[in-house]
Amino acid sequence: MKVIFFFVLISFGIVAQNTDSSFIRLIYNQALSKGKAYEDLRSLCKDVGARLSGSSEAAMAVQWGKERLELNGFENVYLQEVKVPHWERGTKESGWINSKDGLRKINILALGGSIGTNGLLEAEVIEFKSLVELQKSSKSNVEGKIVFINQPMNEQFVNTFNAYGGCYSIRGEGAIEASKLGAVGVVIRSVTLPMDTHPHTGSMHYLDSVIKIPSAAISTLDSEELSKLLVKGKVKFSMELDCRVFPDELSYNVIAEIKGIEKPNEIITVGAHLDSWDTGEGAHDDGAGIVHSMEALRILKELNYKPRHTIRVVFFMNEENGNKGGIAYAKRSIDRGENHIAAIESDRGGFTPRGFDCDGSHEQVQFLKTFGKNLNEYDLFHFDRGFGGVDIGPLKKSFEKIMLIGFVPDSQRYFDFHHAETDVFESVNKRELELGCAAISSLLYMLDKKM
Amino acid sequence: MKVIFFFVLISFGIVAQNTDSSFIRLIYNQALSKGKAYEDLRSLCKDVGARLSGSSEAAMAVQWGKERLELNGFENVYLQEVKVPHWERGTKESGWINSKDGLRKINILALGGSIGTNGLLEAEVIEFKSLVELQKSSKSNVEGKIVFINQPMNEQFVNTFNAYGGCYSIRGEGAIEASKLGAVGVVIRSVTLPMDTHPHTGSMHYLDSVIKIPSAAISTLDSEELSKLLVKGKVKFSMELDCRVFPDELSYNVIAEIKGIEKPNEIITVGAHLDSWDTGEGAHDDGAGIVHSMEALRILKELNYKPRHTIRVVFFMNEENGNKGGIAYAKRSIDRGENHIAAIESDRGGFTPRGFDCDGSHEQVQFLKTFGKNLNEYDLFHFDRGFGGVDIGPLKKSFEKIMLIGFVPDSQRYFDFHHAETDVFESVNKRELELGCAAISSLLYMLDKKM
Repeated sequence: MKVIFFFVLISFGIVAQNTDSSFIRLIYNQALSKGKAYEDLRSLCKDVGARLSGSSEAAMAVQWGKERLELNGFENVYLQEVKVPHWERGTKESGWINSKDGLRKINILALGGSIGTNGLLEAEVIEFKSLVELQKSSKSNVEGKIVFINQPMNEQFVNTFNAYGGCYSIRGEGAIEASKLGAVGVVIRSVTLPMDTHPHTGSMHYLDSVIKIPSAAISTLDSEELSKLLVKGKVKFSMELDCRVFPDELSYNVIAEIKGIEKPNEIITVGAHLDSWDTGEGAHDDGAGIVHSMEALRILKELNYKPRHTIRVVFFMNEENGNKGGIAYAKRSIDRGENHIAAIESDRGGFTPRGFDCDGSHEQVQFLKTFGKNLNEYDLFHFDRGFGGVDIGPLKKSFEKIMLIGFVPDSQRYFDFHHAETDVFESVNKRELELGCAAISSLLYMLDKKM
Repeated sequence: MKVIFFFVLISFGIVAQNTDSSFIRLIYNQALSKGKAYEDLRSLCKDVGARLSGSSEAAMAVQWGKERLELNGFENVYLQEVKVPHWERGTKESGWINSKDGLRKINILALGGSIGTNGLLEAEVIEFKSLVELQKSSKSNVEGKIVFINQPMNEQFVNTFNAYGGCYSIRGEGAIEASKLGAVGVVIRSVTLPMDTHPHTGSMHYLDSVIKIPSAAISTLDSEELSKLLVKGKVKFSMELDCRVFPDELSYNVIAEIKGIEKPNEIITVGAHLDSWDTGEGAHDDGAGIVHSMEALRILKELNYKPRHTIRVVFFMNEENGNKGGIAYAKRSIDRGENHIAAIESDRGGFTPRGFDCDGSHEQVQFLKTFGKNLNEYDLFHFDRGFGGVDIGPLKKSFEKIMLIGFVPDSQRYFDFHHAETDVFESVNKRELELGCAAISSLLYMLDKKM
């Protein structure tokens, strides 16, 4: 007992004596020497697995999240009900390219939300290089065909998210635009940079006013191959998708907090999304964000930091195909009369940190920039206007003055794994992950001290 | 002919019209859209392989380097003779931990330069946590034993090279210090951060005045295991190393240049080392540096840039175990009466660039910092005093006013692969490699314009 009391005094002593700079050093030491994030991520990836909204795995992920937050000893561990869509891939898809050069089976992956093909769908292929090129075409060209949208990501952007931004509409809107011209199916080039054989899925949409047609992704290498065959002559594409939509399911955001001692009613949220696509293990997207958020709080608690404001961690459900968790969380915040002053999201992978984006007023961006003084020595140099995150986005409507902050790690490898079977625990580097935890924990500390 | 002439005019036009900022954008576009570095690296790793000084593979690497430089159309492609040491591992090593818990075979890797064991070497193990702890021990403790130096890299450094700096002397000096106290062999914990089963080699030294004893590395996981067994009781270590030293071999630095149009006698060198350890494929160490250097020049040539100074690329031989290439290059430079104003080295892997270190005067460091203005937008923020590189180091003695510059990529994953069988082509990300080429090419351009 005496020994414990002594150690508590030492802990308080350290906290009280140290400047921001030395407290941040303690945060980094915790993350790098005594971090729990890597083991947490292993468990989420291997003990739970891929966890699309509405699946049994997503339900297990909710249980996992609640248990981990309780194990960390946070306050007010809470499940918030969220109604989520429930789409299932069914039996693994099959696809064939059928040309003068012969028949070849290729990897395909239904896009999330796609209808099935109800048996084998076969049709001649017509290629477009972009959504705009497709939109400019005509019914006489497209009718009865499978539309192949072969738009590569622009590799000249240094930040790969900019390239993604210019390209992902082929996935979301491809089926609508193709169907308007009478196509019977859509196949897209995976929205990724490397030339490899992995298809990448992701959400797609239908309009009630436009006939629904099946929609799938093929790999970049197969896209190049298909494009070359189309130069030689007619090509038929054959595919079978077994996907189905089920009634909405009850699911949950998983929430916990450390109560503020000065301003408990002012809330700083840090979060990520617990759901993932149903391929791979959702390691970078967004298992990394989940363990970043939890570990950031755990470190502050471990260092016996008593926040001025309430710091809350949220594992959002359903970012990938509906954002129902983010919307529900913002609504609950208003319903409860809460005051949200800042929210941080990590949803760009578990890579080496570069800094933070700020979606807020000019003053808020300038305020964030001042953090560089303490964080440059940790190789954090990016503090600028930018995107917060999908999950925290709805808070903006409810809280006009909220500062939304997006964690910015190195972006080079993110789309190599994004929504593909390669997004597994082994693709995450332990130190890169831990540095992300330390960066976010340091940001929470600075925000709490200075807001 | 007319068409070609027209294109040449356009090229010149672009160069003449654009500011630094837009020329650097062209460099990045070349590297990211039309880069040759990734294929060059694949070829060096797969067509040549690991290439320790004195080996047949090193001779093949020299031929490969000369051919590639000629293919790129550079001027004065030249082989400079260098006498290098020739050490061979021989038959793959074997090692066993022999304890109360039973016999277990483990992965071991002789340190470069070690003598063999001349059959099976078996002895009781004594553990030390550092070289200093070993030095403080006594003959009565150590005599007749195998010394196990189990010093982990300090994971709290954000830059892993700082942790390496604090640790690598156990590899270089371990055998000398252990032998002084009568040890019969040395086993070190691999100088790496992750907990895995891969031993990492690297150079070690002997003194003529101290008996030579065999020296090998074991993995971090096996080091932890061995340490735990030693707590329980006596442990014997058994190993067989078949290494041998052969007479020095004739080898070569491989050199090419683009002649300067204003100041051809003022030379800016960019280089990396062509040799590698004999395990893995020398992909990050230092295949990445080789293709960085070659590609940086290729891009300038492709963009039809006519440098003011002579820009020279050097593939140095024998960085890993002797630095004979670096020493010979500096000597040749003096012998030929050359004037070297700057030298850049890439020897920290093919990861996302962070910036550059400068080993030079205060004014030179300040000068380098001014480059941030044009390079911050490419996520390059590190421009500071630091280490140039082993190969270019000897130039410093010969040219007092030379500015030595070390390329600084993200350091988090470097020691995961360093000197281990995992340092293969597949461990290098294409975009990260290409961004390194663009950063170094941009630096060459800026140095050439502003010096």
